[in-house]
Amino acid sequence: MGRLVLKFGGTSVSDVDRIRNAAQHVKREVDAGHDVAVVVSAMSGTTNRLVEWCREASVLHDAREYDAVVASGEQATSGLLAIALQAAGITARSWQGWQLPIHTSNAHTSARILEVNGTELIKRFKERREVAVIAGFQGIHQETGRITTLGRGGSDTSAVAIAAAIQADRCDIYTDVDGVYTTDPRVVPKARRLDKIAYEEMLELASLGAKVLQVRSVELAMVHNVRTFVRSSFDRPEDIDPRATPPGTLICDEGEIVEQQVVTGIAFSKDEAQISLRNVKDKPGVAAAIFGPLADNNINVDMIVQNVSADGATTDLTFTVPAADYDRARATIEQARGTIGYERLDGATDVAKVSVIGIGMRSHAGVAAKAFSALAERNINIRAITTSEIKFSVLIDEAYTELAVRTLHSLYGLDQG
Amino acid sequence: MGRLVLKFGGTSVSDVDRIRNAAQHVKREVDAGHDVAVVVSAMSGTTNRLVEWCREASVLHDAREYDAVVASGEQATSGLLAIALQAAGITARSWQGWQLPIHTSNAHTSARILEVNGTELIKRFKERREVAVIAGFQGIHQETGRITTLGRGGSDTSAVAIAAAIQADRCDIYTDVDGVYTTDPRVVPKARRLDKIAYEEMLELASLGAKVLQVRSVELAMVHNVRTFVRSSFDRPEDIDPRATPPGTLICDEGEIVEQQVVTGIAFSKDEAQISLRNVKDKPGVAAAIFGPLADNNINVDMIVQNVSADGATTDLTFTVPAADYDRARATIEQARGTIGYERLDGATDVAKVSVIGIGMRSHAGVAAKAFSALAERNINIRAITTSEIKFSVLIDEAYTELAVRTLHSLYGLDQG
Repeated sequence: MGRLVLKFGGTSVSDVDRIRNAAQHVKREVDAGHDVAVVVSAMSGTTNRLVEWCREASVLHDAREYDAVVASGEQATSGLLAIALQAAGITARSWQGWQLPIHTSNAHTSARILEVNGTELIKRFKERREVAVIAGFQGIHQETGRITTLGRGGSDTSAVAIAAAIQADRCDIYTDVDGVYTTDPRVVPKARRLDKIAYEEMLELASLGAKVLQVRSVELAMVHNVRTFVRSSFDRPEDIDPRATPPGTLICDEGEIVEQQVVTGIAFSKDEAQISLRNVKDKPGVAAAIFGPLADNNINVDMIVQNVSADGATTDLTFTVPAADYDRARATIEQARGTIGYERLDGATDVAKVSVIGIGMRSHAGVAAKAFSALAERNINIRAITTSEIKFSVLIDEAYTELAVRTLHSLYGLDQG
Repeated sequence: MGRLVLKFGGTSVSDVDRIRNAAQHVKREVDAGHDVAVVVSAMSGTTNRLVEWCREASVLHDAREYDAVVASGEQATSGLLAIALQAAGITARSWQGWQLPIHTSNAHTSARILEVNGTELIKRFKERREVAVIAGFQGIHQETGRITTLGRGGSDTSAVAIAAAIQADRCDIYTDVDGVYTTDPRVVPKARRLDKIAYEEMLELASLGAKVLQVRSVELAMVHNVRTFVRSSFDRPEDIDPRATPPGTLICDEGEIVEQQVVTGIAFSKDEAQISLRNVKDKPGVAAAIFGPLADNNINVDMIVQNVSADGATTDLTFTVPAADYDRARATIEQARGTIGYERLDGATDVAKVSVIGIGMRSHAGVAAKAFSALAERNINIRAITTSEIKFSVLIDEAYTELAVRTLHSLYGLDQG
């Protein structure tokens, strides 16, 4: 029999009824003979309430105290699930981050997990088949002895890190969706749930804003090769056949995916803003003059497009930033105009980024070219293009987002049925 | 300057506004030059909600997990008050029971404090005048590393134990009343707030059901001679003159009370039930036959009255139990009738216990006799009497409770004005 980590997010433990439902999922795996560690988030709504209280107490609150306050949410859930498991006849014990311990960096509110000690958990699996219920999202900084938290969505990362520490065969993420889709099903009704997706692909999807998993958790899963299965906590535990493969998406090594498609999914984001600098002097140091001040102001630049200039004297340079940072980015650039030396600044917030992801691109030529033709046929103007080894992104007018996504989804054979 | 512990109960930190109010009380003491440790309860309502969730998850919940769940309430408050203090310009840091640590017994849900480590707190007082905000009600069991809680009202005990550990000059209990009264002001409008009361007297009052302080906290204060000041958190911090003695009651060593009254206060309880056994055989072992089975059933017997029998053969025996245990107590005695051998069992639940407390009784004769006459004058029948060194109690018909309390309150010169 194997060893599993099961993770339940906030909506999966939103009240005691849902916690009991989670306990039934755990019981099914225990009854099937698995050793199980469970990772829980705070009951949905709890974290927001705690965060709001911190803000009320002081807008500029100490990150260390914020962490102590918000970590209390996961603490309550871990104890409650342990109680619900015991009521279902399962030996169980709750664990806070400081109890295992889960050592993290000192970066309060967005700490990174440094080390998880799984020794005691493994000992208890062996001695008494005890289920560990671990408060997600939190850890402890070894030197200060202070509670830390990992930032929003951090419980996913806790789950994967614990799975790596106890050498789990799989990490099951129970959430409010039943897997990872080829694209957002609300935009493309023909979107298909993927049975499997490679770590690298999932990392791109998560980075591009797919809300299923926190980026950091996918990174960790990739580094430690933690097979991660995204499935719905809303499936009724009593309807599940423990011998059948349940609906969901397995995030795994590409070697495990037999029939690899060229394109796995299409992602898109409307939270983009474009800034174009016209007739920038084409001389060394100009890029640093532009992007240095943006970095200093914590503005995250995504796409950057600079053409080789025709005349060798000036060039146009385009980049994108999150829509929320657009005004700050404009102001930053305008302040640095003297050092940069551009002629005109054009900006737009009614733009969207559409991305095509697939490990198969590594070995297939012409994947992007196909997309450019298809978009051109639909009269969709491409403002900018960026590419990486396993994805390419185009920046287009926001109004065409859905049309572009549907077009590409069909183009690469992702439509179901 | 001195060293103080300030404790704020649930109603004193019921929302962020009240937490800010508590911060102002702390700031006043810090500005006056004191080193301050603060002990906080959960925000009022929080503990009840967490307890209710535990019960929903399982009626027979594991005490260890219950403790992990409910301790999260104090954790949140401690962080929030630290934030509010920092916002008021005070250096502050929160501490959970496991962080100091506060070592307790393993009796989950009603653990006893074994040891409080105040070393780090004192170091930080000296190095940076840092205020410690400590989560009350909770500790850790050293061997298991599990969170424990002290039971309802346990934050009072935390506060006194911490005051003892850091050799505080005083422990200030901020609560929703402004001190300890000679009796319940709702019954006797002429009740006076006591400026001072001796530990022993407060212990009797608390044991008799005065809700101001947990019994255990008074015991600890007495043993470690922690001067404990009960005062209202509803006084507006800005109205308080830091040089004047604030309204409140100081619980202290009797040596500190210059003008000791004979009687300090009158307590009463209507939650009593009386059981009388008629014509019990007056032979060795009969008391054991009665009270053994009651103890086995966890029924707490309070007053016991047995007369020397006139004929040397049989006697009447009367005792009281909490009204809630009356039916169980009757059934227990009736089951043991064979071994006890009584003729008739009379019972009553419409009885009340009125107690007169005062350290002065030690050195004054006739204090109780005065009461018996005064009650007789009012035609109040005394069903039973018990006495101890510093108090005596009478059991009377419940209907006469208020009359008896008012009569005795005047009799001993406790009326104000």
